[in-house]
Amino acid sequence: MKTLDICFSPALLNLYDTTGKTVVVTDVLRATSTMVAALANGVEEIVPVSSVLECLGYRERGYVVCAERDGAMMEGFDMGNSPLGMLQMDLKGKKLAITTTNGTEAIVQSAGADTIIAGAFINLSAVVHYLQDVDNDVLIVCAGWKGHINAEDNLFAGAVAELLADSFTYTSDSVLIARALYRQVISDLMGFLTQSSHVNRLKGLGIEEDIKFCLTPDLFDIVPILSNGAMIPLQRRGLEMAV
Amino acid sequence: MKTLDICFSPALLNLYDTTGKTVVVTDVLRATSTMVAALANGVEEIVPVSSVLECLGYRERGYVVCAERDGAMMEGFDMGNSPLGMLQMDLKGKKLAITTTNGTEAIVQSAGADTIIAGAFINLSAVVHYLQDVDNDVLIVCAGWKGHINAEDNLFAGAVAELLADSFTYTSDSVLIARALYRQVISDLMGFLTQSSHVNRLKGLGIEEDIKFCLTPDLFDIVPILSNGAMIPLQRRGLEMAV
Repeated sequence: MKTLDICFSPALLNLYDTTGKTVVVTDVLRATSTMVAALANGVEEIVPVSSVLECLGYRERGYVVCAERDGAMMEGFDMGNSPLGMLQMDLKGKKLAITTTNGTEAIVQSAGADTIIAGAFINLSAVVHYLQDVDNDVLIVCAGWKGHINAEDNLFAGAVAELLADSFTYTSDSVLIARALYRQVISDLMGFLTQSSHVNRLKGLGIEEDIKFCLTPDLFDIVPILSNGAMIPLQRRGLEMAV
Repeated sequence: MKTLDICFSPALLNLYDTTGKTVVVTDVLRATSTMVAALANGVEEIVPVSSVLECLGYRERGYVVCAERDGAMMEGFDMGNSPLGMLQMDLKGKKLAITTTNGTEAIVQSAGADTIIAGAFINLSAVVHYLQDVDNDVLIVCAGWKGHINAEDNLFAGAVAELLADSFTYTSDSVLIARALYRQVISDLMGFLTQSSHVNRLKGLGIEEDIKFCLTPDLFDIVPILSNGAMIPLQRRGLEMAV
């Protein structure tokens, strides 16, 4: 049976071989939630880049440029890293370039994989359904916070592993830990996550609404998938037709 | 209030500043369990070293030399990395040098700390009592498996954090995750850990008795503490007199 594993931090990614795998990058707060929301609002493609300068360079090519560092939008850019912000703007048909503290870097570092998709609570079921049908082994890469492990990405990974237990083999302790965490806190997800360091960090920035939004499961039936360097939407129906 | 944090893998240790901290290295299966058992059986000191060659060099200086790689004892050495093995030999007054796949390396990498102690389930309460009285901030370093996160070290860290919740402030998600894990599986510790990758790895080596032993809490009231490059026993009573 195909296997699923979880990498708790990009700082551990060198321990994993992503060749031939489907990698699910998750940065619940907020990069992958932002990508799902942007694509749901009609954005054509989102280019994840590592550096602020590289991101700014996309403006000349007609892209809406988005940059976030340490939770805040960077000056000189069109947008930051807010999923709700993505829904409030008219972005239909636009192309975005985005750089964030953790999430976009995790995508860039996963470049050796066969397929890279973006997962978050707001597209949890879409990701689970997509993974049920893939033939590849799967690695979930938690974006974390500057190398540190964080609760919400682990919890998302645990949710995916729990929901896919009939379709995959698990042999790593990372999966054991993430599933146990998910089972322990699922009855009070929000209560648990209000203790998390990242939620408290972001609260200081006045984006409670964004956080609540990011922790709501299944708002969108969209799977962002990396294609020629850009995340584009692969909707479930589209996938079924493509397979 | 003093803080406690958990580093899930030595591969993440560069993210932490150990200066001025008390570091608890834990390698439940089996290096830190082995150290506790050896000191309980009268060993005078245990020198943890990184390399096999360095370890072998201690033989000339009258040390009993112990080496384990990938769970098995290495040829040419006196002993491997078995806690029960340590109890079965007459080691009173002996000096040991030891190198193991993960645990000794974690101790060596924690060298910048103010104090380094060794923790395992078999000395859980002794470690907890010791930490209650220290003034330093505390970092628990999980030895893991070749950089990968493992279940039993995380669980030990979660147990310590849970038991010290009144004495320390926790701000990191690592502590949140480890405590949630501990709460989820405490009622069936052995059942949970029989699923762990490391337990299955070691089972193949026919050391089930060692594993059962390592997962038994509070067999010894001993805290191994690093002093001049060697782990020596700091018993609770000894500590109280020293303070």
